[in-house]
Amino acid sequence: MKTEVRRLRKVEPRAPVLVEGLPGMAFVGRLAVGYLVEALKAEKIAELYSPHFPYYIIVDAEGRIRLPKGEFYYWRNPDDGPDLVMLVGDSQAQTNEGQYEVASCVLDFARELGVRTIITVGGYRSFEDRSRVICASTSRKLLVKAIEAGAVISPEGSPIVGIAGLLLGLTSFTEMEALCLLGETRGHLPDPRAAKNVLRVLSKLLGIEVDLAGLDKSIKEAARIEEMISRIDISGLLEGGPAEGPGYIV
Amino acid sequence: MKTEVRRLRKVEPRAPVLVEGLPGMAFVGRLAVGYLVEALKAEKIAELYSPHFPYYIIVDAEGRIRLPKGEFYYWRNPDDGPDLVMLVGDSQAQTNEGQYEVASCVLDFARELGVRTIITVGGYRSFEDRSRVICASTSRKLLVKAIEAGAVISPEGSPIVGIAGLLLGLTSFTEMEALCLLGETRGHLPDPRAAKNVLRVLSKLLGIEVDLAGLDKSIKEAARIEEMISRIDISGLLEGGPAEGPGYIV
Amino acid sequence: MKTEVRRLRKVEPRAPVLVEGLPGMAFVGRLAVGYLVEALKAEKIAELYSPHFPYYIIVDAEGRIRLPKGEFYYWRNPDDGPDLVMLVGDSQAQTNEGQYEVASCVLDFARELGVRTIITVGGYRSFEDRSRVICASTSRKLLVKAIEAGAVISPEGSPIVGIAGLLLGLTSFTEMEALCLLGETRGHLPDPRAAKNVLRVLSKLLGIEVDLAGLDKSIKEAARIEEMISRIDISGLLEGGPAEGPGYIV
Amino acid sequence: MKTEVRRLRKVEPRAPVLVEGLPGMAFVGRLAVGYLVEALKAEKIAELYSPHFPYYIIVDAEGRIRLPKGEFYYWRNPDDGPDLVMLVGDSQAQTNEGQYEVASCVLDFARELGVRTIITVGGYRSFEDRSRVICASTSRKLLVKAIEAGAVISPEGSPIVGIAGLLLGLTSFTEMEALCLLGETRGHLPDPRAAKNVLRVLSKLLGIEVDLAGLDKSIKEAARIEEMISRIDISGLLEGGPAEGPGYIV
Repeated sequence: MKTEVRRLRKVEPRAPVLVEGLPGMAFVGRLAVGYLVEALKAEKIAELYSPHFPYYIIVDAEGRIRLPKGEFYYWRNPDDGPDLVMLVGDSQAQTNEGQYEVASCVLDFARELGVRTIITVGGYRSFEDRSRVICASTSRKLLVKAIEAGAVISPEGSPIVGIAGLLLGLTSFTEMEALCLLGETRGHLPDPRAAKNVLRVLSKLLGIEVDLAGLDKSIKEAARIEEMISRIDISGLLEGGPAEGPGYIV
Repeated sequence: MKTEVRRLRKVEPRAPVLVEGLPGMAFVGRLAVGYLVEALKAEKIAELYSPHFPYYIIVDAEGRIRLPKGEFYYWRNPDDGPDLVMLVGDSQAQTNEGQYEVASCVLDFARELGVRTIITVGGYRSFEDRSRVICASTSRKLLVKAIEAGAVISPEGSPIVGIAGLLLGLTSFTEMEALCLLGETRGHLPDPRAAKNVLRVLSKLLGIEVDLAGLDKSIKEAARIEEMISRIDISGLLEGGPAEGPGYIV
Repeated sequence: MKTEVRRLRKVEPRAPVLVEGLPGMAFVGRLAVGYLVEALKAEKIAELYSPHFPYYIIVDAEGRIRLPKGEFYYWRNPDDGPDLVMLVGDSQAQTNEGQYEVASCVLDFARELGVRTIITVGGYRSFEDRSRVICASTSRKLLVKAIEAGAVISPEGSPIVGIAGLLLGLTSFTEMEALCLLGETRGHLPDPRAAKNVLRVLSKLLGIEVDLAGLDKSIKEAARIEEMISRIDISGLLEGGPAEGPGYIV
Repeated sequence: MKTEVRRLRKVEPRAPVLVEGLPGMAFVGRLAVGYLVEALKAEKIAELYSPHFPYYIIVDAEGRIRLPKGEFYYWRNPDDGPDLVMLVGDSQAQTNEGQYEVASCVLDFARELGVRTIITVGGYRSFEDRSRVICASTSRKLLVKAIEAGAVISPEGSPIVGIAGLLLGLTSFTEMEALCLLGETRGHLPDPRAAKNVLRVLSKLLGIEVDLAGLDKSIKEAARIEEMISRIDISGLLEGGPAEGPGYIV
């Protein structure tokens, strides 16, 4: 078995933007892009499988199973703005080489679809309670657009770890340009608030209207859990990831 | 050396069912399918070797040695029911990619044999003393059959780890259908009782009569050891595997 | 870079025996076969390199460097007995697949040289102070020869880990036969006494006379160090390897 | 994605010396060769990318990003001495096989450029406060030159770990010769003083004049930090790497 994209449906997007949101730091990317897929009623056009994804299957409520995978959704923009291809999924690759292989495979498929611009979405670990959206890009022009839409430039020297970073890094070998949008998060738990912050910037940047109110219930629930945890003081246990430094990012 | 199946004997099964039982959680699959092989006096038709199996050899009582391997046994059903091909062995693959490679190799061989249906057998970690058989499937029809034979649908979201899961996941790229049967177990020690519970469901599902009384001696012995351990209170040390959550499965 | 044998000199051995002694448990194999190479004044005929060996170089007293490698030495038997090819070296492979790859590469070279019989040498962890030589084999005839030369059959179920085991396991796919000789050792430190015990059996088995007195100085020195360590009671720290069970072997 | 060198500019060096300084022990190699690149105003001619480098991207002060990479710089010697090609970068390979693959790729590129001599630069862990430069080589002649330039021969048996070692080891399969220069360092922190010590030997050896005064500011700053740390007594925490032995080297 190789890392590969299996197309489910032939589409002809018009120079689309690829928006990536695989699970990572505080599930910000997964939550944000997953919400976008639903809000836009995008349709699934392809799946990505890899032997670098975890070696288990996932069971649903009806006892049906599936491998961990990435899913590509397509949304045809009814207005003037760009079409979107959105990548969500269950997992990132489990090894160093696997990360490069999966990211390369995504880029190959993006090229096939005629993608010109890639936007990756993730979380940015912050030790204060902040709501900024951090950005970095392969293109000055794209970076300026992100800043105009409300993002701030990433602190210097912060590594952007995983597929959200590699997709940017590997576009330098292609004609594509890429941008990373990272929502600040404490990083303890899935963070729908950070996801909403990113979506605000993203929708403005793309000129697409998306009603973000649907995230508010999850935000309240997450805040409630966070508050419970802070009272029983096990936040230290939940930190995980790098133990120090201002900004390791997934 | 590649992962490969070495055929020992040419057979022509009639659309057989493949039953997999490599070692995993509480050795439930290995015990169940190993018992089946003996009870049915099945004959060995092939062996599977892989550089992803552990890098040691196993010595028998006469000083003979062998590599870790998988073994395929064939049973020709004298009645109307399906022929069986059974896979048992010493180990699962040791790496993430190795797990995918071994499972793919098993599927390729299954296809060569004309297998239509795959049933994987394993253990399901339970923190209570339960005897249910958990099932999940790629096929609604097969799932219903398993439920009719006494199994219950897996809790939602439980991952099924290892080859017992991957074989199901990877059949989605084939014409085959697959079912997973997992015997609930405390998971401390090899658990012949859970193996018997699975075999009861499996034999009913396949319409094959197997005398399961041969497992009772092992069950008594295992219960005795379990009881001894509970008295000296080292069960915590034996837990192993994921430390929390309701159902990591091997 | 691939795992490969680089021949230094063309020889035409007469159906030689390959004796393997790469570093492992208590360096028994390395010490035994290294001593044999020197005692027989064997000449180097080939080197084995692999990207699965450690990624460092080794510096000698004159500041010269070299990669970790395996070395094949050839000894032409002046008498009736078999010619020998001996494999010693710096390291075993560092990964699971690397172990299979290096062992396969050794077997390929053995076949090129016309080797019929492989004898691997290593240590066998014993928790008592014993001097036995443990054996296991792919061939009943060879096993009997080893027993006649003083070895005892391995306890059932003991895995033989690493290249000393894999070379036996992989010969089952060839015309060759193979034997493993493991000297019992406490396993704390390099153990020349266990090496001598193995060499006594090996030389008798091969019908080759080797003066083993040259090992006595190292044995005395090792005993002295062992005794010092036992007095300062840090033996627990030096155990290493599996913490329990009767016989993990390298 | 494969490990590969991407050429940015075609040059025709005259039998150049390749000087390698990727990050390792106390960043000595990176600091030394990075300083040399700047001092000589060398120009970048190629970049090396690898899926064995870490799977993240690095962000600069303007929000621009890049993959971890190696960079080759070329300096045309205006005098009689040799041209230089210098390799600096962000990281070494993350796996055993990756280390061999990256080093092999560097050697292939060196051969294309007509390199005859390779000098690798790194740090050498010392537990005393020493300033020596340790050397080892594939060539007696080159070693003597290094000693004449002020280096001392490496202690016997010290492994030289990572690319600084592997590049020497792998030249034995080529026509090239190679030398390693390692500046003694406590290894706690990036050590510009050790880098200066190595550069003094290196420049003398190559007959190239380089003003090393530019390192003095960093040396003072590093000494100040080291002194602060020694007062708050956390040096134990910063040791890292092998906990014992006189000389593990990166």
